[in-house]
Amino acid sequence: MRAVDLIYTKRQGGELSREELQFLVKGYVRGEIPDYQISAFAMAVFFKGMTAAETLGLTELMMGSGSVLDLSDLPGPKVDKHSTGGVGDKTSLIVAPLAAACGAYVPMISGRGLAHTGGTLDKLESIPGFRVRLSLAEFHEVLRRTGVAMIGQTPEIAPADRKLYALRDVTATVESRPMIAASIMSKKMAEGLDALVLDVKVGDGAFMATLEDARELAEVMLEIGRGMGKQVAALVTDMSQPLGRSVGNSLEVAEAIDTLKGRGPKDLESLSIELSAWMLSLSGTADTLEQARAKARQALQNGQGLRKLQQLIERQGGDPRVCDDPALLPRAKETFVIKAQYDARVGAVACRSLGTAAMLLGAGRETLESAIDPAVGIVLHKKCGELVIQGEPLLTVHYNEPARLARAMPLLERAVRLAPEAPAPVALIRDVLHS
Amino acid sequence: MRAVDLIYTKRQGGELSREELQFLVKGYVRGEIPDYQISAFAMAVFFKGMTAAETLGLTELMMGSGSVLDLSDLPGPKVDKHSTGGVGDKTSLIVAPLAAACGAYVPMISGRGLAHTGGTLDKLESIPGFRVRLSLAEFHEVLRRTGVAMIGQTPEIAPADRKLYALRDVTATVESRPMIAASIMSKKMAEGLDALVLDVKVGDGAFMATLEDARELAEVMLEIGRGMGKQVAALVTDMSQPLGRSVGNSLEVAEAIDTLKGRGPKDLESLSIELSAWMLSLSGTADTLEQARAKARQALQNGQGLRKLQQLIERQGGDPRVCDDPALLPRAKETFVIKAQYDARVGAVACRSLGTAAMLLGAGRETLESAIDPAVGIVLHKKCGELVIQGEPLLTVHYNEPARLARAMPLLERAVRLAPEAPAPVALIRDVLHS
Repeated sequence: MRAVDLIYTKRQGGELSREELQFLVKGYVRGEIPDYQISAFAMAVFFKGMTAAETLGLTELMMGSGSVLDLSDLPGPKVDKHSTGGVGDKTSLIVAPLAAACGAYVPMISGRGLAHTGGTLDKLESIPGFRVRLSLAEFHEVLRRTGVAMIGQTPEIAPADRKLYALRDVTATVESRPMIAASIMSKKMAEGLDALVLDVKVGDGAFMATLEDARELAEVMLEIGRGMGKQVAALVTDMSQPLGRSVGNSLEVAEAIDTLKGRGPKDLESLSIELSAWMLSLSGTADTLEQARAKARQALQNGQGLRKLQQLIERQGGDPRVCDDPALLPRAKETFVIKAQYDARVGAVACRSLGTAAMLLGAGRETLESAIDPAVGIVLHKKCGELVIQGEPLLTVHYNEPARLARAMPLLERAVRLAPEAPAPVALIRDVLHS
Repeated sequence: MRAVDLIYTKRQGGELSREELQFLVKGYVRGEIPDYQISAFAMAVFFKGMTAAETLGLTELMMGSGSVLDLSDLPGPKVDKHSTGGVGDKTSLIVAPLAAACGAYVPMISGRGLAHTGGTLDKLESIPGFRVRLSLAEFHEVLRRTGVAMIGQTPEIAPADRKLYALRDVTATVESRPMIAASIMSKKMAEGLDALVLDVKVGDGAFMATLEDARELAEVMLEIGRGMGKQVAALVTDMSQPLGRSVGNSLEVAEAIDTLKGRGPKDLESLSIELSAWMLSLSGTADTLEQARAKARQALQNGQGLRKLQQLIERQGGDPRVCDDPALLPRAKETFVIKAQYDARVGAVACRSLGTAAMLLGAGRETLESAIDPAVGIVLHKKCGELVIQGEPLLTVHYNEPARLARAMPLLERAVRLAPEAPAPVALIRDVLHS
């Protein structure tokens, strides 16, 4: 078998067998097939796609290139949630403890912020002392004791995906539905799950711009789940404005804690309940979705979710007192307020611009080497359709470096668009797909 | 400027500016842009093509990546001929001396056989002592004294093309019209030409299977010629059967010598006269095409073409006596004759199979490391439409190793297809395109 012939087959729109895909994936991981052949292959896949069988094959081969967790010693269903990335999306910090409080095990391996979107690891690391780098043995132990553990990618998990993703990133071959789906699913399924809930974001602040795109990506991931015999559901949710009100790492942790106290923004609470409910019902932790919603709501109201988060923080080296006193989280030195110039409604929020502005302030990375400033970010006081009176604050910008504020200002100034009338409301959950 | 952004632009079907192409070509040659980005770019070009401006730009940048010959000291027009590759195509050995005998300078830099097709360098090297590796200074000197010189690629000529071609070969990105055209034209135009005649082969034994494909490739190359202000013409010629009767290196040299003596096969002589005539008229060595044909015919008939070849061979270290006594060329130890089983007409010749059979006998390379056997090959006694009587020879196979003959036999046995009637004749010159 020769790699060049397999590239040719894909270039001509043909289908590769499992053995052929295995030749490519194994050869690549072993360094026997060079980057330049795999990047040409990835570009051919970008143009010609992959069949369902190929996508499943690629997923399983990438998953099998590393360790697959064996959580069979844990006496309960294993379930996780994955979001395709958005602005102000801190649901992982809420739904993982909630599901664990309801009896599920949540072995969550997360990523960092990408472009204008935030990442769960960056948020967790804004908690003083929190360690996202645990060995798989430590991870297993936290999970066993707490019901939830949250870490970053380890070299043992799906090394083929790690290598391929880095290559796709520098060869303009990221935006390929089968490769995106295989990348996500290979890592998630390596967690040894019974069930997975996908939150596929759609809109200006998401990577999928249209509902159609988001649905199609969700379908490909569901198909992989079916092929692997796992329970998978996908909620396609709105990202035309930030979720909740805060964007930025410690600000988002504080908002997640508020939400677990029943004092969070309505959209964030509502989506968190819904995602938790799907986690519970898919994994069989609850019998029906309605029952699952009730359980999740109860765990939020009675504080069990918050206590679970507090245990998690403590067991991963963080300061658990932040749950009682969010002032212990890092705080920016300065704030700057952008106010309404006249009475109006909020017509639209430039969601991606807000995410990019937060990145420029230091909440995300401009280059791989950038350091994160955990304290900076943006609080959005008014969301789409809300009434604003002249002089009321629209945004509060939390910053440490005036030069960074200056770079973010052109985006921030135009981020909240005023209009005479409220726009037609957009449903938060735009679709639910279930295998 | 970042390579990944330029790959993205091409992937989305956009056009790259000259500066952007320069960034890629220069960066690649300098080793600053890695193979894996260029192979992804090449695959994107395969799918999205290149505009005329991009193709011209790529050609000029690849040409400019190395030396461009300065032949301004030579007091006459500089012209060359390039064939896209066929079976039994030895016209270079005929037309280069003919054009030189008529007063043109022919600075020919040729290639080796590729797949089932032969290469001028391999043919020249079957002449005892002939050196195809001259320095550019030696090349210039032979050209000045003889009017013609024939060598192989040197590291100084179009190094960007050399590097890119090797990469395309292993990443299934060879078959891209703009990249094929740019590769050919960047090397040919580095010869410092005034005019170039292209012989674009079409048919079973060529790389272009259809007239449409051949015409389109010819058009792209003509467009490059126009952009560079050079005279370029393309003859689209038939390769549904071998040109002449012999396939294999020393056999083809002998047939070329025969043809320069006026005793060659009619199709080979006729195409050689036509290509030479275009070389003379395009370069202004003759005033009209009709006059050019007369000059070329005369140089063939009066033996000046043959004497030019003899001088060339002598000045490049070869044994010039081969022109008088072709028995001095390498000869295979054994021959095997395939005969007609019944009276019939030749209905078709499997041209590519004959080329592949010659390669398997040792006339070409199966892998980059294969050594060429200069003596082996095939003589085709009957061509399409000719009458054959039971027992008459169809093919004579010249071989040295029985094991190689055995491998080639399945192809040889079915190569000449008999039919009750002669097929409709195919014109040798199927089209002429001229800028």
